[in-house]
Amino acid sequence: MLPGTNTLKEILSQPEIWEKTIAQVLDCSFDITAFFKESPVSEIILTGCGSSYYLSLSAAHTLSHVLGIPCRGIPASELIYYPHLFFSRSRLRGGNIIVIGISRSGSTTETWMALKRAKGDYNARTMAVTCKASSEIERVADYYLGLPFSDEKSVVMTRSFTSMLLALELMGGILGENSNMVDQLKRLPDLLRSVLKGNTELVEYLARNGDITRIIILGNGPAYGVACEAALKMTEMVLELSQAYHLLEFRHGPRAITDPKTAIICIPSDAAEEEEEILLSELKELGAKIITVGKLWPRADFSLGIPVKELEETVRLPLVMVPLQLLAYKRAMARGLDPDNPRYLTQVVKLQHAQ
Amino acid sequence: MLPGTNTLKEILSQPEIWEKTIAQVLDCSFDITAFFKESPVSEIILTGCGSSYYLSLSAAHTLSHVLGIPCRGIPASELIYYPHLFFSRSRLRGGNIIVIGISRSGSTTETWMALKRAKGDYNARTMAVTCKASSEIERVADYYLGLPFSDEKSVVMTRSFTSMLLALELMGGILGENSNMVDQLKRLPDLLRSVLKGNTELVEYLARNGDITRIIILGNGPAYGVACEAALKMTEMVLELSQAYHLLEFRHGPRAITDPKTAIICIPSDAAEEEEEILLSELKELGAKIITVGKLWPRADFSLGIPVKELEETVRLPLVMVPLQLLAYKRAMARGLDPDNPRYLTQVVKLQHAQ
Repeated sequence: MLPGTNTLKEILSQPEIWEKTIAQVLDCSFDITAFFKESPVSEIILTGCGSSYYLSLSAAHTLSHVLGIPCRGIPASELIYYPHLFFSRSRLRGGNIIVIGISRSGSTTETWMALKRAKGDYNARTMAVTCKASSEIERVADYYLGLPFSDEKSVVMTRSFTSMLLALELMGGILGENSNMVDQLKRLPDLLRSVLKGNTELVEYLARNGDITRIIILGNGPAYGVACEAALKMTEMVLELSQAYHLLEFRHGPRAITDPKTAIICIPSDAAEEEEEILLSELKELGAKIITVGKLWPRADFSLGIPVKELEETVRLPLVMVPLQLLAYKRAMARGLDPDNPRYLTQVVKLQHAQ
Repeated sequence: MLPGTNTLKEILSQPEIWEKTIAQVLDCSFDITAFFKESPVSEIILTGCGSSYYLSLSAAHTLSHVLGIPCRGIPASELIYYPHLFFSRSRLRGGNIIVIGISRSGSTTETWMALKRAKGDYNARTMAVTCKASSEIERVADYYLGLPFSDEKSVVMTRSFTSMLLALELMGGILGENSNMVDQLKRLPDLLRSVLKGNTELVEYLARNGDITRIIILGNGPAYGVACEAALKMTEMVLELSQAYHLLEFRHGPRAITDPKTAIICIPSDAAEEEEEILLSELKELGAKIITVGKLWPRADFSLGIPVKELEETVRLPLVMVPLQLLAYKRAMARGLDPDNPRYLTQVVKLQHAQ
């Protein structure tokens, strides 16, 4: 099989996978609601490793937004080794915490261990979202949402990331009884077809642009997790260190590295539009190439188009992710690498000392 | 003046500055206690921009650890643009949140605005930690801790970072009535003198090592914020993109970029020792140079020594920071750069649309 075959197939399959994801979550909506309403929820902690951790950052924003309760994304290893910081004395007294573990395979040791300990030691209720059936995490979790059709042959997560993100967002819309958000999310598969059609040529051009040797990705609020994931795609597939920053944080130090070989990919927000445009203007003047994903900004060097006007900020996130996955894939291919099998990585990380 | 003069002076002044910091916090301990005990505190949010944001991550761990209440570090821009995620409906009902703004100058727009809004719109009580008197943030905050002797001439934060971190840790020790921690913190100025004496030669050697072109910094739990700050020092002063990861997160994707020109600087923890050693062994086998700061690991290529055994994990953090500041400084000098004035950066970032 040619290098990258699986990754490309998986990236391009996302419209259909998202349709299946939506159908699956709607199918489970009664059970999901029953699980969440079983007792009052004071806080939701989302956890995972790598891509799934970044997913948990964006999903936490979405859930907090629709449910009006505190939600945070925490790396599973931090939950295991520093649990007292998240399940503190005051919370244990009055709180009712749900911990949601996100793992494509359901077998990532840190993630299922984090759920097991949250439940056993801190009386948390636990939920798992995975793309495999009969995994360790399924056995540990009180409630399990499986999306087996989103599983992948590639090492790097693409459709599994967006599918699990979409599932959590839709779950939030259902639990928050936000029918407008649910309706918007249902439109995403069709909108993604247009996004793919409208952006593939530009992505191809950018991928072959030899002038870009460093990619920085900026995103605020709910987009920060997606920005981190996009940076990880570049790092994993292209083998170039790429980093994400909270949008306005970039001015506080990192901007020193800006140069004409730096591409700044910006995921514009609704909340901070004015300040973001000023920042991008500054970076453009320092010679960086500015690429926006979402809102059009007339002074950007390149704009990947997403139909942002019709969609809430959190609903756009899966759409924003796909052209960036494609960019990482195509940059890897342009460099003769095999994005299906990045060096030194495996599909599942199992720790040797799991208990 | 020669390039880097101020930065070096400020780095080397830290033992004396820490002595002054300790005296200042002890001097204010009655007022600090009175402020915190005024009404029950359910949560502490620490905020800042750039280095001060990273400081807030490590300080939040320390405060959470000693006070047993949830504490988080949040970038000031996120608090301004997405406040509903942190001051959510359920918290406003019963909670009593303190927001601590950290800013060397006290004039960073995002930070004082975040405090102003937290107070005005969400009824939070506010505290500021800065190194300047009579700043915007001082006017906004309910309680103000000033460390004017820690202010700097350089653009990049070095002694102001460790001094404000030490101040917050000592404050935590006092509030948590943890006399053991307070005693350990009081010993830091003297311990730093030995750390500087014992490590300067190795830092010099590492800084001139042309084989290292990429620096990754790994730290768990309380050390993560310090790892981020160390990566930012490299990025700002040396103009090379450097990144920090939660220690075990590195295995979930980023490890693909490991190569013989990559130095992995690890801040070992007490909590996850066994897993960390396995990870470092793997990375060493992939050719990376392993540098530990703190615990000795016999297979490390280089070890920057910190007297870890005598100190709690959070107490070590200021000590860990200094050799990494020195490394960034010396690498910048070895490359003919001026660490006093990194390009494109200013001491204070003021936004144009501050309200």
